[in-house]
Amino acid sequence: MKLKGKRVVMLAEEGFEDLELWYPVIRLREEGCEVIIAGSGSKSTYKGKYGLSVTVDKTVEEISEDDFDGILVPGGWAPDKLRRYKSVTKLVRNFWEKNKLLATICHGGWVFISAKVLDGYKMTCVNAIIDDIKNAGAEYIDREVVVDRNLITSRTPKDLPAYMREIIKFLETQEV
Amino acid sequence: MKLKGKRVVMLAEEGFEDLELWYPVIRLREEGCEVIIAGSGSKSTYKGKYGLSVTVDKTVEEISEDDFDGILVPGGWAPDKLRRYKSVTKLVRNFWEKNKLLATICHGGWVFISAKVLDGYKMTCVNAIIDDIKNAGAEYIDREVVVDRNLITSRTPKDLPAYMREIIKFLETQEV
Amino acid sequence: MKLKGKRVVMLAEEGFEDLELWYPVIRLREEGCEVIIAGSGSKSTYKGKYGLSVTVDKTVEEISEDDFDGILVPGGWAPDKLRRYKSVTKLVRNFWEKNKLLATICHGGWVFISAKVLDGYKMTCVNAIIDDIKNAGAEYIDREVVVDRNLITSRTPKDLPAYMREIIKFLETQEV
Amino acid sequence: MKLKGKRVVMLAEEGFEDLELWYPVIRLREEGCEVIIAGSGSKSTYKGKYGLSVTVDKTVEEISEDDFDGILVPGGWAPDKLRRYKSVTKLVRNFWEKNKLLATICHGGWVFISAKVLDGYKMTCVNAIIDDIKNAGAEYIDREVVVDRNLITSRTPKDLPAYMREIIKFLETQEV
Amino acid sequence: MKLKGKRVVMLAEEGFEDLELWYPVIRLREEGCEVIIAGSGSKSTYKGKYGLSVTVDKTVEEISEDDFDGILVPGGWAPDKLRRYKSVTKLVRNFWEKNKLLATICHGGWVFISAKVLDGYKMTCVNAIIDDIKNAGAEYIDREVVVDRNLITSRTPKDLPAYMREIIKFLETQEV
Amino acid sequence: MKLKGKRVVMLAEEGFEDLELWYPVIRLREEGCEVIIAGSGSKSTYKGKYGLSVTVDKTVEEISEDDFDGILVPGGWAPDKLRRYKSVTKLVRNFWEKNKLLATICHGGWVFISAKVLDGYKMTCVNAIIDDIKNAGAEYIDREVVVDRNLITSRTPKDLPAYMREIIKFLETQEV
Repeated sequence: MKLKGKRVVMLAEEGFEDLELWYPVIRLREEGCEVIIAGSGSKSTYKGKYGLSVTVDKTVEEISEDDFDGILVPGGWAPDKLRRYKSVTKLVRNFWEKNKLLATICHGGWVFISAKVLDGYKMTCVNAIIDDIKNAGAEYIDREVVVDRNLITSRTPKDLPAYMREIIKFLETQEV
Repeated sequence: MKLKGKRVVMLAEEGFEDLELWYPVIRLREEGCEVIIAGSGSKSTYKGKYGLSVTVDKTVEEISEDDFDGILVPGGWAPDKLRRYKSVTKLVRNFWEKNKLLATICHGGWVFISAKVLDGYKMTCVNAIIDDIKNAGAEYIDREVVVDRNLITSRTPKDLPAYMREIIKFLETQEV
Repeated sequence: MKLKGKRVVMLAEEGFEDLELWYPVIRLREEGCEVIIAGSGSKSTYKGKYGLSVTVDKTVEEISEDDFDGILVPGGWAPDKLRRYKSVTKLVRNFWEKNKLLATICHGGWVFISAKVLDGYKMTCVNAIIDDIKNAGAEYIDREVVVDRNLITSRTPKDLPAYMREIIKFLETQEV
Repeated sequence: MKLKGKRVVMLAEEGFEDLELWYPVIRLREEGCEVIIAGSGSKSTYKGKYGLSVTVDKTVEEISEDDFDGILVPGGWAPDKLRRYKSVTKLVRNFWEKNKLLATICHGGWVFISAKVLDGYKMTCVNAIIDDIKNAGAEYIDREVVVDRNLITSRTPKDLPAYMREIIKFLETQEV
Repeated sequence: MKLKGKRVVMLAEEGFEDLELWYPVIRLREEGCEVIIAGSGSKSTYKGKYGLSVTVDKTVEEISEDDFDGILVPGGWAPDKLRRYKSVTKLVRNFWEKNKLLATICHGGWVFISAKVLDGYKMTCVNAIIDDIKNAGAEYIDREVVVDRNLITSRTPKDLPAYMREIIKFLETQEV
Repeated sequence: MKLKGKRVVMLAEEGFEDLELWYPVIRLREEGCEVIIAGSGSKSTYKGKYGLSVTVDKTVEEISEDDFDGILVPGGWAPDKLRRYKSVTKLVRNFWEKNKLLATICHGGWVFISAKVLDGYKMTCVNAIIDDIKNAGAEYIDREVVVDRNLITSRTPKDLPAYMREIIKFLETQEV
């Protein structure tokens, strides 16, 4: 268990991509990392795009970046909902200001666009939103996982193995 | 019937916002306007976000902007699918180059972002994508309908009455 | 906006034909007409046959025909539910007694049968209920829209453009 | 097994009331009666209102009343579909002309209305269609099962025990 | 009506096989038998595998075998839920100890396995659980219905006619 | 990547527990292990209990235990289907005879019961099937993961982290 003592936040909202939320959550728990599911406050249980459910532990207002080593955003339609909340984009920006891990996959990049943190980063995403992340100042790279400093990004559920290998490596080597 | 002899294209893809597609289609037909439903080619019948269906008349490859007075894009998840097709963004751009009507509502702005036609326009959209259309060079205005030259935009299904009043006025007064 | 100052009631119940309820509602609002959605009181939000929802503004008990210029009934399975309520058939009959607009499409004729107002009218309806409206004393005509005095009827969603053209014309010319 | 050698037809179409079709079918088979499921020809497998399925054995065109002792019609939305077919109403009328068993429950009365066989019968039905069967010349009685000569009718699924007791008694005593 | 004065319990839980619960319930009521639907207490209304619903009359804790002539268990996924409750298996065992009717079909055998009452019985079941009932000490027979003393079992919904013929015969001849 | 060169089979059938199939599959791929999804042959794509899908790579007939290091069985309703196939139980038994990895979680134990390989093993499972695995000769232990020689078992999705830690450790240390 490589991540004992580490703590991360996974954001959740209606329509999350089921495996893009659940695979990282269980995977990090397998390494002893504590994972808190945080929602926008709109509901306490959300349904994924294909039917899995998730119950949130806290709302984003109850989360401080000081207590965590990073924040993850799933894909699906959840990012389209999450980015509308000031409380969400502010929290993401706080993690960014302290150079803590920002990780996302698929459509999750939308949340980082609205948090205004992408300028100057190399990253990847689902092909649908390439224009949006480019317009936000990021450089798009078509690769299963892109690591640029504290930002780790992948494209689709197929990339989950590569995505988690890099996230675990990052958290393992990051000084607390 | 104010629009006899007019012809417009309505784009369709999986997950279209049901009323944002169907209300304009029936409304324009009520005015004698011919409406062709055009899809990306991925399927011949699409299901809306809430359950209505639509069968396409043609694929976008079979459409020439020369035969139409304008193009409409519904909201919902369809724009996220439509913008991935070169054939779709090229067709939208062709309408733009000839100053023909471009109309959209809700999430439809994404298709215009990927068609790279928004720079310099005043417009509106659903709040989720405000950052995306701003990053694409448009000026966001929070109003039920915004008309800037050949671009007519609204925010959500609640705005459909205002949206269609402006679209009909535009097509009625536009010289063929 | 041709119908400023006009007011109509749209009845709603579980299983309404989605576009047969929503197209007239939005269409009349586009013309400045006030539209109140009235339910039987069984629920406050109903689901349409294909998945759209509608929330009622009032129950039929709270509606007086004196405050409105007409009443509309959607098709789908809602009429099968609506006709079972005395409060519904009584309200419809009140509109009929004052020669105000009665409009329906598809299966909506069932509500008028149970309100016992169809005797002597020319009308149309979905083919399934032709025998029922004939047995109730109406004369069936197979046409997209039939206007006989204050009764306006259509057959299926395909007829919505013709249906609304006649309803708007009727309300526009009707003296308040 | 009281009905060995007897044969009846059960009509089926999309949206049949699940138990109103399946309870009589299995019940008659329990008594050794042969039951053939006959559809309009629109599909080979139909889904009930609540989710059960039924696969038809024949289309109504392939059925002759000479080979059967009676015909049953389930409720739900299936009758609204069935009554639109000339082949269906003609077959029902043929059973009626030969004084063979006609049995139905709930909304099934619509099929008999369109077959024009109800005039002069005492019967019952779901409350929604009372006006329709009265207008067709029948006398409505509010009782769990009404037997008038060869017509056996009930109101809702709750009446299935009484309904089947009378149907079995009728078939048992009817001379072949 | 052959079963006047008789009383049986039908167990219910989420995912019951729709006809395996409802056919016996209505069938027994047709014979004048009183049928009480008893649940585990987890919910008051359960949904069947295909969509039918059932509302329970009592929880198993409120049932005493002294007041009933037998207990029936439907198939589907309900048995997988029911067998987890001590209160359920205890009640079944009480019926067994007093030699009262135990009847089940399809997957219902699981409940009897966990009640530890199958040892030495001849019986049948759906093919999926043959190994489980054999390991529990029963002898499997591939026949539409197997009657061994007070245990009556069938395989699938196709066997419902034979199943109910034997259950009714058993209850009819059983001394009260 | 600890499992380069290793190969395992994951069985699939309708109603598999979504995460119990997908988490191990992606997890093993993250470690460089090749995972083949094998079905009974009944379909090529299966739907999970909550809505995720899986497309099989091969049928069990096309799989030889000689080419793999182990076989995994997900929970949900899939095991109830899988155990009915001779080809499935024979394949599982072949892995057992060669002392290769047998791993399962939740209801998956049913497949091993029907493969007749559990006698003498210590193991765990979902509480519903405890009686079945005991009757098959296994000793039940209530722990998140139980490893007894080549058999690794867990109880529910909550146990997935512990389950995969042991499976990976087993495959890593197992000589090829």
